[in-house]
Amino acid sequence: MKRYERYAEEIAELIRSGTLRPGERLPSVRQASASRRISPATVFEAYYRLEARGLIQARPRSGYYVAEPVAARAAEPATASPSPRTTEVEISELVFDVLGSTRRPDVVPLGSAFPSPALFPLDALARTLTPAMRRLDAGRIVEELTTGSEALRRQIGLRYVVAGTAVDARELVVTDGAMEALNLCLQAVTRPGDLVAVESPTFYAALQALERLQLRAVEVATHPRHGIEVDSLAEVLQRHPVKACWFMPSFQNPLGSLMPEANKRALVELLARHGVPLIEDDVYGELHFGARRPPPAKAFDRDGLVMHCSSFSKCLAPGYRVGWTAAGRYAQAVQRLKLMTTLTTAMPSQEALAAYLQHGGYDRHLRQLRQALADSQARMLAALARHFPAGTRVTRPEGGYFLWVELPDGVDALLLQRQAAAHDIGLAPGHLFSADRRFARCLRLNYGHPADARVEPALRTLGRLVHEQRRPPEPLPRAP
Amino acid sequence: MKRYERYAEEIAELIRSGTLRPGERLPSVRQASASRRISPATVFEAYYRLEARGLIQARPRSGYYVAEPVAARAAEPATASPSPRTTEVEISELVFDVLGSTRRPDVVPLGSAFPSPALFPLDALARTLTPAMRRLDAGRIVEELTTGSEALRRQIGLRYVVAGTAVDARELVVTDGAMEALNLCLQAVTRPGDLVAVESPTFYAALQALERLQLRAVEVATHPRHGIEVDSLAEVLQRHPVKACWFMPSFQNPLGSLMPEANKRALVELLARHGVPLIEDDVYGELHFGARRPPPAKAFDRDGLVMHCSSFSKCLAPGYRVGWTAAGRYAQAVQRLKLMTTLTTAMPSQEALAAYLQHGGYDRHLRQLRQALADSQARMLAALARHFPAGTRVTRPEGGYFLWVELPDGVDALLLQRQAAAHDIGLAPGHLFSADRRFARCLRLNYGHPADARVEPALRTLGRLVHEQRRPPEPLPRAP
Repeated sequence: MKRYERYAEEIAELIRSGTLRPGERLPSVRQASASRRISPATVFEAYYRLEARGLIQARPRSGYYVAEPVAARAAEPATASPSPRTTEVEISELVFDVLGSTRRPDVVPLGSAFPSPALFPLDALARTLTPAMRRLDAGRIVEELTTGSEALRRQIGLRYVVAGTAVDARELVVTDGAMEALNLCLQAVTRPGDLVAVESPTFYAALQALERLQLRAVEVATHPRHGIEVDSLAEVLQRHPVKACWFMPSFQNPLGSLMPEANKRALVELLARHGVPLIEDDVYGELHFGARRPPPAKAFDRDGLVMHCSSFSKCLAPGYRVGWTAAGRYAQAVQRLKLMTTLTTAMPSQEALAAYLQHGGYDRHLRQLRQALADSQARMLAALARHFPAGTRVTRPEGGYFLWVELPDGVDALLLQRQAAAHDIGLAPGHLFSADRRFARCLRLNYGHPADARVEPALRTLGRLVHEQRRPPEPLPRAP
Repeated sequence: MKRYERYAEEIAELIRSGTLRPGERLPSVRQASASRRISPATVFEAYYRLEARGLIQARPRSGYYVAEPVAARAAEPATASPSPRTTEVEISELVFDVLGSTRRPDVVPLGSAFPSPALFPLDALARTLTPAMRRLDAGRIVEELTTGSEALRRQIGLRYVVAGTAVDARELVVTDGAMEALNLCLQAVTRPGDLVAVESPTFYAALQALERLQLRAVEVATHPRHGIEVDSLAEVLQRHPVKACWFMPSFQNPLGSLMPEANKRALVELLARHGVPLIEDDVYGELHFGARRPPPAKAFDRDGLVMHCSSFSKCLAPGYRVGWTAAGRYAQAVQRLKLMTTLTTAMPSQEALAAYLQHGGYDRHLRQLRQALADSQARMLAALARHFPAGTRVTRPEGGYFLWVELPDGVDALLLQRQAAAHDIGLAPGHLFSADRRFARCLRLNYGHPADARVEPALRTLGRLVHEQRRPPEPLPRAP
């Protein structure tokens, strides 16, 4: 971490913890430079970054001040109250209709599930491909069938150490992206008709997976900032024969919520008491804006019940299709399902990633990526405050690249999605994020395209469309 | 095709068709050179290749003669009579036990499902990886999600033209190997509890797929040389509510059978009358020893009922994990299942294969590969004739890399597999190839490792073990 990054992070931490409060003045560049023994340029760079993230504001001829939190500008959504009943899942058609129609380069990708590919070191990765495969002994292509590349598995093991935990290498199964890991885990612990607990709102791909395997869903109250409410889950477990949970404890899609460590621990302990496995979707864990990678729930697992799933698709190598699971006591079952369906993960992708991870550009890349996303979030929050009507509520995640927006009464997100599509603007309407299509005035917006100049005008257009939906239609001229 | 290959192929065709009969003398090198206006070296090279394939024999100071067909040395197995009943499938445990235990480099790979990686242009492929990915516009990584690389899809389309047919590009879904294609197709056309018709014997992965999706199997009589018996299938369709068929019309695994074109056409017409989809596993189609690639059953499909599945894993690029299906009327359903499970196939693998296929080493590589496998088959057939007891029956496939061996009465293949494993020799016992474990004295042997010097001694050891199983045990010394 560079010096200015370290200083910026310290101040951000003071703001997050409330030690520095909105409106308070920061030390001047000269004061900070003297007291910290760092150059004025370093202080200035740190303040510049903090300002870009919306955490502090420069006042001309006066200095830098802690900004009003975004929450004061646009309130956060409240925790939704999910239905206490279990639900058949039938969402796939809607997901394909809505998202398939706007996956074109001329559409502003606010509805996309991916960050911009321009954020990734694709050229550096490409350069590793040929040498990595030429080094590979041909025999290993067949021998490493079952478990994935030895070199990559070692590097994945190291990432757990960076995250402050460790997993047994024998638990690891390399998969074709996290999506395959999640699906194999789900199939390993359920049979058709079983009940699975999900968040509320839920990532639509989890709902699609349930639908594909003919499983039923029960939704658990999920706080927009702190994620799954463990007490609510305890009630659900009392009331229903839940066979598995599929949760995203860090930077949940779509809320961006991050479960505090204590809650993750409590979650794992609760599930251990019930003997219920947790499928932990942790694909955004590396995209934290705070100083430290949040530990996965897996870090608190003593019983092998947590099946931790992640990938490199959102933080390093989109299109390489490399994910994995550390599947605890279900590792062999998952491995066998993999052998029966896709056999093994593409070796060029595995070997190239192993070589890239080993030679060490990864942490520098991640710092740049996190900064770019944090800056981009601040800009989108500011744009929403400018263009969207009062009463709009917005999350302010500490990682990832999604905002969850709750529009004022009277606005329908699916209608808005269709109107936006006519302007070549994509968005993900709330309807996709619940088996009972409850989030009808919510949107998920992607801020992972910082260099896309079309984003700001698109938000202005969206704001106008929202305003128009709220205005009552003009009365028709009366028939004569 | 080189001149000597063309000449060798002409003579092979004359032998296959019976125009040249066993024991007949071929024209001398000088005669053939004069009459065909080709150099003596070309004729000699052609004869040399034919001799290596076991089709002709040199007699010292006399010339070349058509060899006795292998069938005269070891008879072919008869068509098995499958059970007329439908069967629950429970085979996976056995498959994992038997095959997992011998997937080590120190085991002679006679039980392997793969040919030797040394047979493939892995270095040439590796060289295409970096330039192919550097050329790729980053945006396409996300846009081409649904359907696979445009460039690769075009090359796959061309392979259908080479096979004498054509498919609509909109039918194509690129998958993570053929295994994924087959599994997605199966899931697209069935629900748990449905009945699927398979060959007898059947590739164990088909049985595993049925088991995983909780489907029932009904086996159809399959001729060791001509594949599915269409009349038997007609009876099965009359008697049972078959929802889909999973067949390998070309070089079936494990029999190596090749359905004649007329039978393929009759099969497709029969299924069209019943409205039953065919999942066509055609992964060995490119590995033909005859002059022409056999057309897939898909070539006769007018109703979009044939889901043709293949891959590059067995003929070009093991470990790259690129397969596809041309799924006819089910293409959209398959594409959606793919989006829900593995999303898309690794771009480095797709782009490298597209570049390799485009720049044209593929046909030359395939000719060398087919020749190497044909030669290797002839050598293994000769070794079996030397080492195995009379009464052993062996198939003589016109492509692929498997022999199916029926041992004399009194030999148990699973016992033999265990004894062989103790000698570090792998083999696939017949028990794996049927839901009712009927092929208890059959073996599948892999001849796809021509450079492996351990194969011949391993066959000698296997022959000895077979002889020993047939010898009655020595009487125990009587108790005093």
